[in-house]
Amino acid sequence: MQELAPVFRDRLLVSASAREHYGAAESWISAALPDAVVKVRSTQEVAQVLAICNRHGAPVVPFGAGSSIEGQVLAPEGGITLDLSAMDQVLRIGAEDMDCTVQCGVTRQRLNEELRDAGLFFPVDLGAHATLGGMASTRASGTTTVRYGSMRELVLGLTVVLPDGQIIRTGGRARKSASGYDLTHLFVGAEGTLGVITEVTLRLFGIPAASQTVLCSFADLDAATGCVVEALQFGLGLNRIELADDLQMQAINGYCGTDLPVGPTLWVEITGSAPAVAHDIALFQDLAQDAGAVRVELATTPDDTARLWRIRHDALYAARALRPGIKGLSTDVCVPLSQLPACIAAIKAEIAHTGLMAPLMGHVGDGNFHLVLLFDPANPAELETGMAISRKLVELALSMGGTATGEHGVGLGKKPYMQAEHGPALDLMRRLKCAVDPSGIMNPGKIFDL
Amino acid sequence: MQELAPVFRDRLLVSASAREHYGAAESWISAALPDAVVKVRSTQEVAQVLAICNRHGAPVVPFGAGSSIEGQVLAPEGGITLDLSAMDQVLRIGAEDMDCTVQCGVTRQRLNEELRDAGLFFPVDLGAHATLGGMASTRASGTTTVRYGSMRELVLGLTVVLPDGQIIRTGGRARKSASGYDLTHLFVGAEGTLGVITEVTLRLFGIPAASQTVLCSFADLDAATGCVVEALQFGLGLNRIELADDLQMQAINGYCGTDLPVGPTLWVEITGSAPAVAHDIALFQDLAQDAGAVRVELATTPDDTARLWRIRHDALYAARALRPGIKGLSTDVCVPLSQLPACIAAIKAEIAHTGLMAPLMGHVGDGNFHLVLLFDPANPAELETGMAISRKLVELALSMGGTATGEHGVGLGKKPYMQAEHGPALDLMRRLKCAVDPSGIMNPGKIFDL
Ligand SMILES: Cc1cc2nc3c(=O)[nH]c(=O)nc-3n(C[C@H](O)[C@H](O)[C@H](O)COP(=O)(O)OP(=O)(O)OC[C@H]3O[C@@H](n4cnc5c(N)ncnc54)[C@H](O)[C@@H]3O)c2cc1C
Ligand SMILES: Cc1cc2nc3c(=O)[nH]c(=O)nc-3n(C[C@H](O)[C@H](O)[C@H](O)COP(=O)(O)OP(=O)(O)OC[C@H]3O[C@@H](n4cnc5c(N)ncnc54)[C@H](O)[C@@H]3O)c2cc1C
Repeated sequence: MQELAPVFRDRLLVSASAREHYGAAESWISAALPDAVVKVRSTQEVAQVLAICNRHGAPVVPFGAGSSIEGQVLAPEGGITLDLSAMDQVLRIGAEDMDCTVQCGVTRQRLNEELRDAGLFFPVDLGAHATLGGMASTRASGTTTVRYGSMRELVLGLTVVLPDGQIIRTGGRARKSASGYDLTHLFVGAEGTLGVITEVTLRLFGIPAASQTVLCSFADLDAATGCVVEALQFGLGLNRIELADDLQMQAINGYCGTDLPVGPTLWVEITGSAPAVAHDIALFQDLAQDAGAVRVELATTPDDTARLWRIRHDALYAARALRPGIKGLSTDVCVPLSQLPACIAAIKAEIAHTGLMAPLMGHVGDGNFHLVLLFDPANPAELETGMAISRKLVELALSMGGTATGEHGVGLGKKPYMQAEHGPALDLMRRLKCAVDPSGIMNPGKIFDL
Repeated sequence: MQELAPVFRDRLLVSASAREHYGAAESWISAALPDAVVKVRSTQEVAQVLAICNRHGAPVVPFGAGSSIEGQVLAPEGGITLDLSAMDQVLRIGAEDMDCTVQCGVTRQRLNEELRDAGLFFPVDLGAHATLGGMASTRASGTTTVRYGSMRELVLGLTVVLPDGQIIRTGGRARKSASGYDLTHLFVGAEGTLGVITEVTLRLFGIPAASQTVLCSFADLDAATGCVVEALQFGLGLNRIELADDLQMQAINGYCGTDLPVGPTLWVEITGSAPAVAHDIALFQDLAQDAGAVRVELATTPDDTARLWRIRHDALYAARALRPGIKGLSTDVCVPLSQLPACIAAIKAEIAHTGLMAPLMGHVGDGNFHLVLLFDPANPAELETGMAISRKLVELALSMGGTATGEHGVGLGKKPYMQAEHGPALDLMRRLKCAVDPSGIMNPGKIFDL
């Protein structure tokens, strides 16, 4: 701290309120405060902080927008929280190459504003205000991942500050490379436990010429997911394919004042050239009818489309409104698509025994779904039930070849499941951690214990 | 060896001819023989061999089909070559999930035969007979990478035997996961230096309903690449987009008996639904005309299509026929698309001074191209010129933000360029190597020296 103060002056925060702001979780996990917060402005400054902390063995917790929900930015061992949000420059937009390089603190919203004039966009559209460095670090995804992939597929290269302050570049601007170990993917999803990402090179895409949204209601979940499997096999130009269950639809009707059928519902967006979209939409309607769709509603105007997607985006708030004052725990398993109906059915049967309210929304094209478990963490019995359901769901998903977390990451919340999910591979992760961060200063206590 | 002989009996080969077969390179690099070859049949057997070799510090060189061209399967330090080609079971095809799991020795040709009935295919279609374990290990790609990605994007999970014989699983069958470090990508592209991949889980795709091939000739390379940039920005359903230069076209006319214009030429394949293909082909023709195409030929029948792609696939043989008896060195740089015309122009200017014949073919949608440098490695002056051009090209590519190897990998041939390409990140690769393979038995001397 003595070494940091003269360098960072008023960008070193030690007040209780600052520490509380940075050490509080966007979730059911309890707060854990850092000793201080440093607001950095450049890769060089990050290197400076890390070199100092590494010398003293002081923990460093990278912080983008703090929107992660598994306690990733908490500081259970104290130390320094590194606020990267001021590193917010879009450094380069390559229109011909359809790529860009940004500083880690740029949000995806900001990036897309800057891209619009070039007719390009970056597709990972998660439900929160988040930074691209944070999104890379949690391997984030969104509603369009079914089409464009997640941060795993879309990060081409990184600038990273290693724990000892050394600066490296990984990957590059070439679309593909067979040159050496894939360091980029080592840092994507590492949740700040291996170093600090300061710059990110991303793939971009042209804005499609045409797009059409459909809302489809089904009698049961099997019918809805069956329709999704077929649409994927036909290779339709699916841009988004989102699922809500009956309770979620009820919540939406209550919250949004809509009058939609209270049954399993798909939001589907198909994009491409105008004739491709027309063809694929017609085919999708046939598939939906064959699968027993109860109602198929095509958005007819841009306003209509915006309305349907606004309803989708309000789903979390609608869910929470079922039980005002309760934030809930959002589960995040992802399973092979063929297992999705069985996985959902089994967990719903468990939930039915408990009386817990747990509306469901899913990125169903990827086999990823969230239940918002609306329990009161202050009530020990409810907490126990909620945690038991969360645990049960992860066990189910793992037994079906799935993963404990499709997109939210591990942090503290999913740490207990890592041994079951990875087995002996977890030891290899520990070995990598020790090789990259021998003093163990980077975001200690996250993903796994050493 | 004493420990291996009783276990593997006639599957342990020590004859000179066997050692020569496995220690010869598909390239200009000189042979380097192993002490013995072991033909394994299962993950357990691989684990057995590795545990024994690890105890004795004996080098192990994994061997799939041996088609790699940078000396990856040579044994410069002797030891055991591990022939994995008998591990050739397709273990599981998930039609609903559009994925499969295969043993590492399955070739892509075999896999696609097994998939055809399910209406599915695996898209990485490189120019050689290769195994999926070898393709994963070199991070291979092919003509359809512009649409579907390379092995980097298409491997979902692996079974890996670590150097000490421990068996781990990485990734899984879920389409996405934010759970822990990305071990899958650590092994994809590691060229057998970190362990042996014994099983691979792959993404599959539905065979598109329609497809159309076009051959387009241009007056100059800039016009051809300009047309590619536009087609990509319009988001056309490009499945393949391959470029040949004038010398390559001359070679093709000579070898295939065709009468195609001797100028820069694009092979384009567009796939999708029938109306999407019709729309995109029309748009592509417009773009090509605007870019100044000299001739645009649409394949009209399936035979015609097959003929055009056969010509493309024969390109390497056609190139070599320009100078019979000479295999040549195939360069492999990959640069951002915007840099491609400048990169090609600069290297062609260098080549012009030397009198070297060097026809060009490229996976131009990815910015990756190959020059076949037709020099005689037995002639010292020619060898020097050839190597100087190869080096100059890598330097050019790196200065343009590109990579020394888009798809062939590093092996021994590209090792001299790793420091220039990766800088201090190369040290991190070395640290990872030491963490995963502390005795240094796995494919020693490849990618980098320790
Ligand atoms: C309402 C809501 C909706 C959400 N919807 C989605 C969704 O649809 N999809 C999804 O994937 N997630 C979703 N999330 C979770 C969250 O938004 C993501 O995890 C996001 O990627 C976090 O980004 P951030 O900038 O807020 O990172 P932070 O929360 O600040 O940090 C996340 C992790 O990354 C590390 N980190 C941050 N920046 C860096 C850096 N530059 N270098 C190294 N490490 C760094 C941190 O130490 C921490 O471990 C949602 C969250 C909320 C609250
Ligand atoms: C005519 C020709 C055309 C080619 N065209 C292309 C092309 O279009 N695209 C392209 O990418 N490449 C191409 N190549 C190069 C080559 O085919 C690829 O590198 C291919 O991926 C090698 O596969 P393989 O099974 O032959 O592997 P091998 O040559 O046997 O091995 C390659 C490397 O991987 C390691 N390895 C092999 N199997 C395993 C395993 N199971 N676990 C761990 N390590 C393993 C080996 O030790 C070695 O380092 C071409 C080669 C030729 C000769």
